[in-house]
Amino acid sequence: MKKFLKTTSLLLMCSFLLAACGNLQDSSLSSGGGDSGKSSVQTTTSSDSSNYDVLLSGGKYKTSPISGVTAANNSNQFNSRSFESGLMSLSRKQFSTNSYVFQEGQVLTASTVSDWLGRKSKKNSLGLNPASNGSTDENKRAPMYFQQMLEEDYLTKQDGKYKLTGMSIGIAMNKIDYYQKKQYGATYKTNISREAQQEQGQRIAKEVVKRLRANKEVGNIPIVVGLYSVAPEDTLVGGTYFQYSVSKSSDLGKWSDLGYKNQMLPTVNGETAINSGDSDSFTNFKSNIQNYFPNLSGVTAQAHYDGTNLKSMDITINTQFDGLAQVTSFTQFVQQSASKYLPSGANLDINIQTVDSQQSVVTRTNGKFYSHVYDAD
Amino acid sequence: MKKFLKTTSLLLMCSFLLAACGNLQDSSLSSGGGDSGKSSVQTTTSSDSSNYDVLLSGGKYKTSPISGVTAANNSNQFNSRSFESGLMSLSRKQFSTNSYVFQEGQVLTASTVSDWLGRKSKKNSLGLNPASNGSTDENKRAPMYFQQMLEEDYLTKQDGKYKLTGMSIGIAMNKIDYYQKKQYGATYKTNISREAQQEQGQRIAKEVVKRLRANKEVGNIPIVVGLYSVAPEDTLVGGTYFQYSVSKSSDLGKWSDLGYKNQMLPTVNGETAINSGDSDSFTNFKSNIQNYFPNLSGVTAQAHYDGTNLKSMDITINTQFDGLAQVTSFTQFVQQSASKYLPSGANLDINIQTVDSQQSVVTRTNGKFYSHVYDAD
Repeated sequence: MKKFLKTTSLLLMCSFLLAACGNLQDSSLSSGGGDSGKSSVQTTTSSDSSNYDVLLSGGKYKTSPISGVTAANNSNQFNSRSFESGLMSLSRKQFSTNSYVFQEGQVLTASTVSDWLGRKSKKNSLGLNPASNGSTDENKRAPMYFQQMLEEDYLTKQDGKYKLTGMSIGIAMNKIDYYQKKQYGATYKTNISREAQQEQGQRIAKEVVKRLRANKEVGNIPIVVGLYSVAPEDTLVGGTYFQYSVSKSSDLGKWSDLGYKNQMLPTVNGETAINSGDSDSFTNFKSNIQNYFPNLSGVTAQAHYDGTNLKSMDITINTQFDGLAQVTSFTQFVQQSASKYLPSGANLDINIQTVDSQQSVVTRTNGKFYSHVYDAD
Repeated sequence: MKKFLKTTSLLLMCSFLLAACGNLQDSSLSSGGGDSGKSSVQTTTSSDSSNYDVLLSGGKYKTSPISGVTAANNSNQFNSRSFESGLMSLSRKQFSTNSYVFQEGQVLTASTVSDWLGRKSKKNSLGLNPASNGSTDENKRAPMYFQQMLEEDYLTKQDGKYKLTGMSIGIAMNKIDYYQKKQYGATYKTNISREAQQEQGQRIAKEVVKRLRANKEVGNIPIVVGLYSVAPEDTLVGGTYFQYSVSKSSDLGKWSDLGYKNQMLPTVNGETAINSGDSDSFTNFKSNIQNYFPNLSGVTAQAHYDGTNLKSMDITINTQFDGLAQVTSFTQFVQQSASKYLPSGANLDINIQTVDSQQSVVTRTNGKFYSHVYDAD
């Protein structure tokens, strides 16, 4: 069990998923509501009604105590944000952004989740990972399936007070379990099939919901549970949720499959494109901009799919130039090339950067472009 | 004389000054124009008519050969962009963005400018910095006044070809000249008064224009010359243009004073605020957001003035959190606080970052807010 620092040095992929959660408690900043009690939230001018307002507690934003508690190491920094944002997307289907406000999970404690993420043993009867079978062989050992857990709380106002009336739980399942045979030794891997992720994930989810229901704070409120497949360390894309279920008041309901997939473009290691049309479009975009501007050391994309349907692309362009006129000119050129070559339905986040720093950003959300050049003047 | 790498690792101050120069040569991407000749430029859908289209030469963006040639070291990275963007602002008054296209300076060569930036000596009769008087005493020596030079070319289409029909020259004058008494020795400083900057700058400008006029490529075209005061190394703001003049066809015209000033907020070293109302507004903004969110290690601004009139603010907020929901919620809160507390007329660029990376950005341009959260999903 260890806490690891979420590295975000390469958090270059962007989306607007959560682009404008509102959050306020100070009534002097409120745009509505007459309630100025301590535990109240005023509605803020959120620029997007598909986002949640956020509850501040005692004037402060409250982080979840279980944030960052993991079963094993995984240095892929793309997992942490998609684990969060994916669960919030699933939650929207159940908890309307008009009625519910959001707060990071406050029910589960770090020590509880630390126990749950452990192996079942005499010392840790609550462990949800299987007991060790003694083997250290990659294919014979019992792997650590359950890697991380996320709680999101959804509250509604009742009699002037915010009450916990909905909860979402993310269960992160390893696709590869990294382990050492001895401390500080070499790292070995056990591969975990999708079937095993699913079977173990459903078992863990059922038990987690049962334990949560025993907690007075939770009781019979609806709980959304999502199973998330953690992307291996060496991939340049994040993981995805692959199944979810809603527990209305007691046990979980039917499991629904999710078709989310991420793919790096251009594809690597001879991988087949999820959608060859998108892959070709990206190749054309890439060669077009590389023809015009020298010193582009890389143009890559994270493509996000629902089935074979492209939802969004996060593109990173590495340049070696940083003069203002050149960056500005290049940014405009990138926007035009994106408009011409990239699939028109997909949202875009294009980051233009040197080794040192962000130079500019181009986004397209619901068909509308926006660009911004970072510029000391 | 040395070239130095422009460090941009802290290029966090933003503006929209040049937010959308268009530039294209490839007729397949053009939105207008029937001319597909090699040296032509098609008009692109620039999102702002106050910006120049940019000429690509032979399909490529051409950088100026004199970019980065400096007389002495100055590690203040805020100078380089304001030196560029300030000259382009001055150029707009003379060369309409509707008629002229922009290209980085192509007339002056690096070796010419290197000679001009040197001290006058037997070996270098073209040096525009004064000959050494032999003294190394801070107050008795002849300092290096002239630090750097920038050329911007403005072209118009005549008989289907783009011709150089306007030029702008930036003359960067040291406010502090940093020097060593012996190689690799300690660094000493000579302070240069505004009067000396002005007198020497005008002398240098006159000579530069005379030399340019002798060049056939330049001939009698209008030349805008701006005198720029380089910000010292230890300030956290960039320099500003303080005077400019237009040479219609031969010598320079009358010099006009510019009232541009930059100030760091909160003010440091007991400095007096340029405008105490703005300074108070910023303090209120800062305390408001610090009250609500823990772990903010710094909230600072570069305020840009014309006289005592606030034009824009570039604000940097350093945080220690990087969870998606928290960053999103904080970004919205910052926008609301900015809207409530900061002077309404000023353009804003607010960057929210951890030590590692950019987290989000909030901008206000002509009263319109935009925010973007960097988000790996």
